Amino acid sequence: MSKNTNKIKKIGVLTSGGDSPGMNAAIRSVVRASNYYGIECSGIRMGYDGLINDMVVDLGPRSVRNLINRGGTELKSARSEEFRTVEGRSKAAETVKKHNIDALVVIGGDGSFTGGTIFQKEQGIPFIGIPGTIDNDIFGTDFTLGYDTALNTVVDAIDKIRDTATSHNRVFFVEVMGRDAGFIALNSGIATGALDILIPEQKDSIEDLFSSFENAKQKGKTSSIVVVAEGEKLGGVYDLAKFTKMKYPEFDVKVTVLGHIQRGGSPTVADRVLASRLGVAAVEGLMAGKSNVMAGMQSSKIVFTPIEEAIKKHNEIDKDLIKVADILST
Amino acid sequence: MSKNTNKIKKIGVLTSGGDSPGMNAAIRSVVRASNYYGIECSGIRMGYDGLINDMVVDLGPRSVRNLINRGGTELKSARSEEFRTVEGRSKAAETVKKHNIDALVVIGGDGSFTGGTIFQKEQGIPFIGIPGTIDNDIFGTDFTLGYDTALNTVVDAIDKIRDTATSHNRVFFVEVMGRDAGFIALNSGIATGALDILIPEQKDSIEDLFSSFENAKQKGKTSSIVVVAEGEKLGGVYDLAKFTKMKYPEFDVKVTVLGHIQRGGSPTVADRVLASRLGVAAVEGLMAGKSNVMAGMQSSKIVFTPIEEAIKKHNEIDKDLIKVADILST
Amino acid sequence: MSKNTNKIKKIGVLTSGGDSPGMNAAIRSVVRASNYYGIECSGIRMGYDGLINDMVVDLGPRSVRNLINRGGTELKSARSEEFRTVEGRSKAAETVKKHNIDALVVIGGDGSFTGGTIFQKEQGIPFIGIPGTIDNDIFGTDFTLGYDTALNTVVDAIDKIRDTATSHNRVFFVEVMGRDAGFIALNSGIATGALDILIPEQKDSIEDLFSSFENAKQKGKTSSIVVVAEGEKLGGVYDLAKFTKMKYPEFDVKVTVLGHIQRGGSPTVADRVLASRLGVAAVEGLMAGKSNVMAGMQSSKIVFTPIEEAIKKHNEIDKDLIKVADILST
Amino acid sequence: MSKNTNKIKKIGVLTSGGDSPGMNAAIRSVVRASNYYGIECSGIRMGYDGLINDMVVDLGPRSVRNLINRGGTELKSARSEEFRTVEGRSKAAETVKKHNIDALVVIGGDGSFTGGTIFQKEQGIPFIGIPGTIDNDIFGTDFTLGYDTALNTVVDAIDKIRDTATSHNRVFFVEVMGRDAGFIALNSGIATGALDILIPEQKDSIEDLFSSFENAKQKGKTSSIVVVAEGEKLGGVYDLAKFTKMKYPEFDVKVTVLGHIQRGGSPTVADRVLASRLGVAAVEGLMAGKSNVMAGMQSSKIVFTPIEEAIKKHNEIDKDLIKVADILST
Repeated sequence: MSKNTNKIKKIGVLTSGGDSPGMNAAIRSVVRASNYYGIECSGIRMGYDGLINDMVVDLGPRSVRNLINRGGTELKSARSEEFRTVEGRSKAAETVKKHNIDALVVIGGDGSFTGGTIFQKEQGIPFIGIPGTIDNDIFGTDFTLGYDTALNTVVDAIDKIRDTATSHNRVFFVEVMGRDAGFIALNSGIATGALDILIPEQKDSIEDLFSSFENAKQKGKTSSIVVVAEGEKLGGVYDLAKFTKMKYPEFDVKVTVLGHIQRGGSPTVADRVLASRLGVAAVEGLMAGKSNVMAGMQSSKIVFTPIEEAIKKHNEIDKDLIKVADILST
Repeated sequence: MSKNTNKIKKIGVLTSGGDSPGMNAAIRSVVRASNYYGIECSGIRMGYDGLINDMVVDLGPRSVRNLINRGGTELKSARSEEFRTVEGRSKAAETVKKHNIDALVVIGGDGSFTGGTIFQKEQGIPFIGIPGTIDNDIFGTDFTLGYDTALNTVVDAIDKIRDTATSHNRVFFVEVMGRDAGFIALNSGIATGALDILIPEQKDSIEDLFSSFENAKQKGKTSSIVVVAEGEKLGGVYDLAKFTKMKYPEFDVKVTVLGHIQRGGSPTVADRVLASRLGVAAVEGLMAGKSNVMAGMQSSKIVFTPIEEAIKKHNEIDKDLIKVADILST
Repeated sequence: MSKNTNKIKKIGVLTSGGDSPGMNAAIRSVVRASNYYGIECSGIRMGYDGLINDMVVDLGPRSVRNLINRGGTELKSARSEEFRTVEGRSKAAETVKKHNIDALVVIGGDGSFTGGTIFQKEQGIPFIGIPGTIDNDIFGTDFTLGYDTALNTVVDAIDKIRDTATSHNRVFFVEVMGRDAGFIALNSGIATGALDILIPEQKDSIEDLFSSFENAKQKGKTSSIVVVAEGEKLGGVYDLAKFTKMKYPEFDVKVTVLGHIQRGGSPTVADRVLASRLGVAAVEGLMAGKSNVMAGMQSSKIVFTPIEEAIKKHNEIDKDLIKVADILST
Repeated sequence: MSKNTNKIKKIGVLTSGGDSPGMNAAIRSVVRASNYYGIECSGIRMGYDGLINDMVVDLGPRSVRNLINRGGTELKSARSEEFRTVEGRSKAAETVKKHNIDALVVIGGDGSFTGGTIFQKEQGIPFIGIPGTIDNDIFGTDFTLGYDTALNTVVDAIDKIRDTATSHNRVFFVEVMGRDAGFIALNSGIATGALDILIPEQKDSIEDLFSSFENAKQKGKTSSIVVVAEGEKLGGVYDLAKFTKMKYPEFDVKVTVLGHIQRGGSPTVADRVLASRLGVAAVEGLMAGKSNVMAGMQSSKIVFTPIEEAIKKHNEIDKDLIKVADILST
């Protein structure tokens, strides 16, 4: 894989969409891998907006030192409206040409990949995507960059909430990120011994929730955590708390929305290693002439998935895991 | 101080009001110190409610092992309505007599101390208070139990929020605990380099806030954190965000309410050591015949403050610290 | 898988060998899953020694609450010499019979599995193993219990060491656990941007190490971390430091042996979820008549591997990962 | 205090000696406070060596953003041999003049202050010291920069060690930093419930240690932590472990030397706020004409102590705290 058959001389790297822990580690990996293979590397700031507005910086191997363990993205990120227009992409192409960039590495999610693939088709600039999002909902990789870190942040927070829930015999509804995907909710719920876990992938009913409470009362459980993905269709945490309080006026019901703390923080080892591997893979992929694909990791192996497929399909929640959650909450 | 002139044979310990990290370490200290001085120790569960309803457990020195580093309170806590009535306190006195408890150690805040002092006057049961609350607003001690831990939890969370704020050039309003006191807000704001800090002790105006933003823009600051105590009189974080967005439509404004994660977690060293010292002091104080006082720490020395004074007066925010915050946010 | 075709009425669970984070979560899972399927559960304390000396406790579903996030093992662990003898195992069998235990779940490593399989063959007691060791060197599972937690502990420690290494332009040799396996060293080395990583699986030479230093000097790197697995054949960290100091007297060389902090701590999410799944799988496996197998996880699926195979074969270090380490250290 | 009566136009700041967490926060504070008062600020890299070799960088207020939470020192530190010579200091004075630096802020320990005071007397350059060392052994301040962070790092590590100690019924000797001072050992020992704590300030005997073990055995304690300051006069941890093993061959005795992890890591809130206050105080002190003093914090108030006094005297261990340790280890 290490032959530069595609004669790439300069790679541009950018982060786009919502930021996630590990993006910096991936930038570092793209820069160092490029350098290793004798390829120059430029960083584009502010996502596609930076491509449109010529915000380009040279990145040498020493410029990314002490970056692997930092949260956020040093290149900054944005959701670009202008890049959705032909004019925007045309200006972006000029920047690419001006800086002699031969190919792009785009670290981001679905929306960013869609942008990259349109740009590639329109302007002929090869690109490889690296899945960077905490939601873990991108097809073609077992884990997305930032997911493991976000999950540990969530569990650390719920562990703290449990301390006070237990001390006061309270019921807590905790909202975690995941607009369309319940990975964070399901796994953090199992890891914190939640009484119930509500995720968009499952049809939940308020009766099921109440029967969990009945069950818990019967077993002598005096405090409970219910983890709710933000995309849960049964209702938001405030609604759920209200319904619960109406049904069980004796409960001391509280709500916590974890919010943006889930996006930050120094990446875990899993995210740092994943970022390191995907960054190298993206560079080697471009060298080998790949384009319009996403570099992912499946069963510890690098796999390139066509962007169209990565966007269309979705990672499925493991049914076994839902069953494990049921068994252990008893 | 170590003579048991008061012939105490059995001490009861309880936690009351909102829980705070370090309460378990204080319980452990009361139990071990009692044992050291040949005094028996009972734990009362669920605060004053447990005193009313005879929820009493024997606590030997080995029963509190591996407790010093746990968040929450193993004895559980509650705010008791019934203890506000003469009947409730009368029933509580029966429990005290039934178990031959000679004196109480009450770990909690203002409200819990008020209850203890009424109980003492009405029923003649000596008690010493240990200030357990994350708000740090109790007079007679430099720090309350749980404050240092809560502060570090808050700062850890805001550090994570800063990662994403910086990556996206955003303005974040972060609400932290402190209904009447700005200690957490002021210190966490300084520790995270907040642009502005809004606390109940200070008269803030929306114009001052906006002038901070102007200042920041002028200096090229692209992202900002504003830390707001929950008791801030200018408005809640959602209002402040709305006003800001109206004034600066170009800002990407976000809100995070940190909530109950601030109450949990393994206590920091400062809280563990404080809890250890205050627990020993409370036991030694009761032995020496003290009652109706709070054991606190001032300039690293144990100080006993009359409960009436501890309740009436309040810890003042350090004006120098407010100035430091102003200087460093520039 | 959820039919109890094997008519198991009572399961005994024990932890054996070196402890690892997640063992408590696995115990909880075995207890809760047993309860879910109407099976009784007993805990055996102190590993096989507890089986020999009848240290058996009943474990109901509420007895394991608040256990999922605790490090170590509440059942305690030991390496039993007596269980290596026929007499020892014969006494152990009596305990099993006395308590009407139908099957065992053994959480531990290679040695513990060998003991379990001999016991099974000699005494006919079915058992399933759960791989609990931080070294990740057991065949039949992608990850062992405790590995992810240990890895994050190591990286957190090396991040701290890097702060001081960078501040003083120092070279640090850091020894991490792994007597026969370099998983922790290789992954923590990548995650911390180590200059070099020395593992037992690779033939290293002092010349290679020195050429890394030459390379680093040339590139203007002023401080370096070298991560060394304890089983490294080239020499221990003190030897390596000495050789380096002889070759480069101008270097400020330091050594840190991370030691037993690597075994403790609250388990990460990955370890908690893995423990939860393997515990359920072990119970369901015994119900389905399986024995003498290890429950592991491969590509997110439960896989049962014959104990003989799990013991004989070893997880291989991923060659790609070694290459990634080389590329990124430049 | 905010009048620049001394007409300072440019301040130079450097970090010297062993690094400690919070040094970066102090640098930031000096830079921002200077800017606030219209004073220029230069950073000197590599401590006094950088002063000798003209390693000076301009530091504007934006250059120190995102620095408050970083471990180590961005200016780097060193122990300078050359600065101990008249020639060295003479070259350093040239650098000071060349850059029009009017006064210095030196962040470091005893040795660094000695250097600064000689330099001041010889070359007439005003300087104020900020106590930066994890050992907390500098007179004139309740706490030194980095002490609270190091203490929490130590306790976090010992909490992990306790997990494995408890799981295996082991005795652990843990060496912590503190060549002449037992602050870290004493406070971390209390905070982790250590059986015994050995510090240089106290005359310990092996008999006392053994009697602690006897006591523990009698009370049914099955595992123990003994915290030992590196400056302990009774012997190092390896000796103590050997003696213990000879006396109690049945004990499973282990040793851990925590080492350099104690110097790194993101500073705690206490250290960040302390650094912020002392940095402002140092700048304001220089403006007011102070020199040859150390800015410290006593009972939450800024206090300036003459350097000679800060060097000669030492912070005393609190006897009450030793007693608390004794009481609670029972």
